[in-house]
Amino acid sequence: MNIVLLDPCQTESEIWSITSKRQLEHLKQHINVQVGDTLKVGIREGKRYLTEVVELMEQAVKLKPIQIESVPEKLPVTLIVAMPRPKVLRRLIMDSVTLGVEKIILLHSYRVDKSYWQTPFLQQLDQYVTLGLEQAGDTIAPKIEIYKRFKPFVEDVLPGLITTDCPAYVAHPYADMKMPFAIDHPCTIVIGPEGGFIPYEVDLLIKNGCQAVSLGNRIIRTETVIPYVLGRLFSAC
Amino acid sequence: MNIVLLDPCQTESEIWSITSKRQLEHLKQHINVQVGDTLKVGIREGKRYLTEVVELMEQAVKLKPIQIESVPEKLPVTLIVAMPRPKVLRRLIMDSVTLGVEKIILLHSYRVDKSYWQTPFLQQLDQYVTLGLEQAGDTIAPKIEIYKRFKPFVEDVLPGLITTDCPAYVAHPYADMKMPFAIDHPCTIVIGPEGGFIPYEVDLLIKNGCQAVSLGNRIIRTETVIPYVLGRLFSAC
Repeated sequence: MNIVLLDPCQTESEIWSITSKRQLEHLKQHINVQVGDTLKVGIREGKRYLTEVVELMEQAVKLKPIQIESVPEKLPVTLIVAMPRPKVLRRLIMDSVTLGVEKIILLHSYRVDKSYWQTPFLQQLDQYVTLGLEQAGDTIAPKIEIYKRFKPFVEDVLPGLITTDCPAYVAHPYADMKMPFAIDHPCTIVIGPEGGFIPYEVDLLIKNGCQAVSLGNRIIRTETVIPYVLGRLFSAC
Repeated sequence: MNIVLLDPCQTESEIWSITSKRQLEHLKQHINVQVGDTLKVGIREGKRYLTEVVELMEQAVKLKPIQIESVPEKLPVTLIVAMPRPKVLRRLIMDSVTLGVEKIILLHSYRVDKSYWQTPFLQQLDQYVTLGLEQAGDTIAPKIEIYKRFKPFVEDVLPGLITTDCPAYVAHPYADMKMPFAIDHPCTIVIGPEGGFIPYEVDLLIKNGCQAVSLGNRIIRTETVIPYVLGRLFSAC
């Protein structure tokens, strides 16, 4: 937690209050916060401030804002990813948010086990987003969308995300073209499930405007390939 | 598991045997391997082959090699990383191996909890390396070294790793220079612990030949920053 994220309603008066149990525990146990300390605070969907701790209570930490700070910029990228195993979902969302992905789409695919869609973790996406924002020092949540049917998404929704200035790349081990790097334009990236997209799916993605690109001959897990690809694509940022 | 890694002694006769319980379980439960199937097999520290399954037994799968395959190249990088929490260690080693890091150095630092060095996971590094190689389709283990004292390492060992053609970069949020990208030479990267290196440590690293470079104003977790930085540095590969 590198900033404390507050709801706008917690910052309406002159003195702000941190009251969430998770945040209080972190501040008291890990940071051992004291009156007079400065603390970085973000307002959800709003600005970021340096604040000063003015009072420590059992159920609250009271703050006053000192100065405004800049919120890190997002990466202009939509990440479309085949729904991962529940254990991986939390990390994947947190990391994508931390790295500044603007929009995340969770998609069904042939090799996605249907049981994955039943995971209670899907109800907790907002918590993972909060953790990712607090890690990065960001305040703006990405949009997250869920499509449980592959074909209708690829045929009806995906083409609307692709333009000449905003291409879509699907990572595919047998593609001739390499994944680009140091790009200076927005893009969409499509990452398959464990075991990869099946040929029918790759063909449908290409038919609907995606460019198949290779990342070399190492096979990288979904949760690892996401930071790897983002570092590569946006290396000029 | 994208290849099955065997010890050289398992591949000395004409017919090879997979006998490890973990590998057999994976092949039978996840892949449902059958006689006549092809299987990618790597020989530890050696070559990689496409093989054919010739016999399925209770305690073994028997194979014969069909043709040689290429082993993915390593990234010419030494990764020096502050010893992470035990929970993170496994993933960090696996991912670094999967991505092709040539050499990994685990280093003590002021903000590394001394208890981390007591973790039994440190005895299991070789298992994590195997998992990383099997994920990537690689056969060559990276060198792993451990230094439990920061100052002697930085003053006596680190300078020997740095040359004009092989610079060292320490990721530091307040550096003016940006982390380079698309490099065409080997390098060493130094990644701090949760909370970062303390100023004394950063100064000592710089004094001993490291360049402090920034990755922008998002704060990224150790295990996420490694693939992110590797994707950025070696984007021209």
